[in-house]
Amino acid sequence: MANLRSKLFTYLDPEAWPEGGISPLNKAVLAFIGLSIVAAILESEPTLKQEFPQGFYALNAVFAVLFLAEYLARLWAMGEDPRYAGVLGRIRFACTFTSLIDLAVVLGLWVDIIFGIHGVYGVVLRLVRVLRVFSLARNSDWAAAIFLLGRAIRDRRRELCLSLGLAMIILLVSATLLFVVEGPTQPEAFGSIPRAMWWAMATLTTVGYGDVYPVTVIGRLMAGISAITSIAIVAMPTGIMAAAFSDTFQQMRGGPR
Amino acid sequence: MANLRSKLFTYLDPEAWPEGGISPLNKAVLAFIGLSIVAAILESEPTLKQEFPQGFYALNAVFAVLFLAEYLARLWAMGEDPRYAGVLGRIRFACTFTSLIDLAVVLGLWVDIIFGIHGVYGVVLRLVRVLRVFSLARNSDWAAAIFLLGRAIRDRRRELCLSLGLAMIILLVSATLLFVVEGPTQPEAFGSIPRAMWWAMATLTTVGYGDVYPVTVIGRLMAGISAITSIAIVAMPTGIMAAAFSDTFQQMRGGPR
Amino acid sequence: MANLRSKLFTYLDPEAWPEGGISPLNKAVLAFIGLSIVAAILESEPTLKQEFPQGFYALNAVFAVLFLAEYLARLWAMGEDPRYAGVLGRIRFACTFTSLIDLAVVLGLWVDIIFGIHGVYGVVLRLVRVLRVFSLARNSDWAAAIFLLGRAIRDRRRELCLSLGLAMIILLVSATLLFVVEGPTQPEAFGSIPRAMWWAMATLTTVGYGDVYPVTVIGRLMAGISAITSIAIVAMPTGIMAAAFSDTFQQMRGGPR
Amino acid sequence: MANLRSKLFTYLDPEAWPEGGISPLNKAVLAFIGLSIVAAILESEPTLKQEFPQGFYALNAVFAVLFLAEYLARLWAMGEDPRYAGVLGRIRFACTFTSLIDLAVVLGLWVDIIFGIHGVYGVVLRLVRVLRVFSLARNSDWAAAIFLLGRAIRDRRRELCLSLGLAMIILLVSATLLFVVEGPTQPEAFGSIPRAMWWAMATLTTVGYGDVYPVTVIGRLMAGISAITSIAIVAMPTGIMAAAFSDTFQQMRGGPR
Repeated sequence: MANLRSKLFTYLDPEAWPEGGISPLNKAVLAFIGLSIVAAILESEPTLKQEFPQGFYALNAVFAVLFLAEYLARLWAMGEDPRYAGVLGRIRFACTFTSLIDLAVVLGLWVDIIFGIHGVYGVVLRLVRVLRVFSLARNSDWAAAIFLLGRAIRDRRRELCLSLGLAMIILLVSATLLFVVEGPTQPEAFGSIPRAMWWAMATLTTVGYGDVYPVTVIGRLMAGISAITSIAIVAMPTGIMAAAFSDTFQQMRGGPR
Repeated sequence: MANLRSKLFTYLDPEAWPEGGISPLNKAVLAFIGLSIVAAILESEPTLKQEFPQGFYALNAVFAVLFLAEYLARLWAMGEDPRYAGVLGRIRFACTFTSLIDLAVVLGLWVDIIFGIHGVYGVVLRLVRVLRVFSLARNSDWAAAIFLLGRAIRDRRRELCLSLGLAMIILLVSATLLFVVEGPTQPEAFGSIPRAMWWAMATLTTVGYGDVYPVTVIGRLMAGISAITSIAIVAMPTGIMAAAFSDTFQQMRGGPR
Repeated sequence: MANLRSKLFTYLDPEAWPEGGISPLNKAVLAFIGLSIVAAILESEPTLKQEFPQGFYALNAVFAVLFLAEYLARLWAMGEDPRYAGVLGRIRFACTFTSLIDLAVVLGLWVDIIFGIHGVYGVVLRLVRVLRVFSLARNSDWAAAIFLLGRAIRDRRRELCLSLGLAMIILLVSATLLFVVEGPTQPEAFGSIPRAMWWAMATLTTVGYGDVYPVTVIGRLMAGISAITSIAIVAMPTGIMAAAFSDTFQQMRGGPR
Repeated sequence: MANLRSKLFTYLDPEAWPEGGISPLNKAVLAFIGLSIVAAILESEPTLKQEFPQGFYALNAVFAVLFLAEYLARLWAMGEDPRYAGVLGRIRFACTFTSLIDLAVVLGLWVDIIFGIHGVYGVVLRLVRVLRVFSLARNSDWAAAIFLLGRAIRDRRRELCLSLGLAMIILLVSATLLFVVEGPTQPEAFGSIPRAMWWAMATLTTVGYGDVYPVTVIGRLMAGISAITSIAIVAMPTGIMAAAFSDTFQQMRGGPR
């Protein structure tokens, strides 16, 4: 029994796996979390939910049982860690941040299958599971990559702030221009600066939905000039993020910083 | 009294703050200018203005009193500067370019709350406040960044002119092509070169609103060929601006030029 | 006769051409394959097929005869290769992977002109011919370029996986945000996460078809923020592919790796 | 008289100006050509032409007289060049390529003001004037830049061909995929590979007009995958052109190649 608990501990504790990385059991848990997120995403689609109501219910029941079993197993095995030994230690463990998330996920699942949570709130509650990934996968390559990426972004925070500020200013200037020249003709789309901002956002990111666009000659001229001169400025935050990524990839390859 | 004036001078004059950068009082003034600009932007939205007419009126009254008080305080405190001492010096100070802008902003606010200026002109008048930012924030990091950026753009003025010229030529060539092949079918959208320019602008910047597009086989073929070969040329000014930005950021980091 | 077979062998076998590259006869075969693919593409257009039914039939008949002749000639000439000499050798050659494809193409052509295969299946069957290009053109500059490109992509497989994963996550996060804030207003377009994914894909690649877009104020705000901050992340796989290409081109020029 | 001819020669012959660059007189001629092109572009707009018919007629008459005068002056002054002296020399000069273009432009202008050429042909005929720019401005900075750009593009012709070929293949593959999965549902937009090519072009250049887009689940999935993986490949020719430009600009700055 003690042997089993010790073995379970090395398999369940993300830090305890002797070979580094993630233990096979935690990989399986992560796969189940992934599956349950995919199920939650598909369940949000009403046509699917209406066609297979029992299917989704059964799936949620399976996840509820599995995640409860895993939660209890983790609670039991954690007794191996001297900090969490005994009943008091278990309570202390259950009150750690990651354990509270685990508990919230398990409770959410059981509340969902017993009472049923519908609509947008139900979907959001089901997606809370994604938080569990961060604590379980903290020894993976992915976590290392995201840590490096976060540092690369932090290193560039001044540039990022400046360029976001400039992008904001250019968006405002373009929106104000179009509000002045196009507003009287199309009050619905350009009748105020906040309304014209929607056009400016869609144009200067080059998304161009086409729900709003200038129709007067002077409005089109202004739109053309502002598009050609400003797209680069709005793309600046994007460029800085891209540089942060490329730095991160270079570091992961072991290249010089 | 003289002591207060001397203290106020160091707090209000953008150059006089002994610690460098912007004094706390001027930071507060800048924050109020920012707030008043946000208020002006929101006030331009008719649905908001109709719902809170008194709210916007009260806000404008507060700004009018504050900016008038600040203007008078600045006028009084500037006596510390030997150039602006005495009544004649104050008049000389009031006639400097930045003081005239300050006066215009204050007068605009009072005219607005007394007589009410409506429509587009009112919005533009309220946005004039933004000019005050430039004189007050001239010692900030942002001003340094914008100065460096301006120099980086000036250094590239030849490339920028050339690439804007080439972009213009490519836009004209694409528009002429589509006018010739698509004009007879869609006279409304492609019936003249200036009309086809609107399509060319939307396509070659990849915005693609979708309000105009070729429908004939030969027009679509031409549009495809011109899109694939020309997008790079229209993106050139954008690329040069991006290089100017990246230079600026590198200089701000203290890196080699 | 033996002399003719030997000559035909050097002309038909992609490896046997003494001057390197592709023999003139195989170039002609490749040109015919190219022509037959263009014909298949044009034949997929119903208006063209209805206007020239005999034309396409005749063209397919010509291709059927030519490809059959080429298949038989190749079968005969391969006797020069000691591995494929004699009747058994010929059967062994006919069972190689590339010969089976050749046979499938020839059979498909004959089935098509005798029985007629209509609709989407017919078009797909005709495009199978493209597979023949790979075996015949394996000594060309293009094949070398594609080989180098494949290696450059394989060298970057980790970055590519990571960036595709991050792009997927950002797409999911944006879609979930818009599903939450915009779903109740536009259930048709944003009523589930999979539906909102279509919007997220069109927006974060900056394609922006304009068939779906947020209409509420909070939805537009979210869309704007997610567009400006996320476009770079979705463009990452694109940037990595671009770097792989540029590496490939540099290697082809003989430059340092 | 001979003195005047000699002076006129140095002013009119693009090569003869002693200070290098373009002579003031030729700059004026170029300005007039520019003006006449702008006039031709504006004249193509029916609403403008109908409002100011006499205005455009008068403008064309002025250009006709000026360009004829310039043509005759050039013919006369060219006698300074020993190759073009005498009546026979003048005929020889009139038969040079650039002189024939000049003559065509002058004749076109006179035919236009005497008989009136309407519609698309008239616009195209008026734009022929643009060809005169190339011979007159061949000593300018712009001509040097365009020459360098042409050489940079020629240096990259192999990469450009390869990448255009790959872009074409990816466009075809995407179009074929969408034709197969989306064609049965939307025969109008995806009912053949050439039709689906229009969608593929608009999507993979990220223009995204929004006139055609997949509506089925599988079609949207395919469209998303093909967009995220292929945009980089279609942007390749664009990237190569951008590199050619940036090389050109560097050379113009006198930097190392």
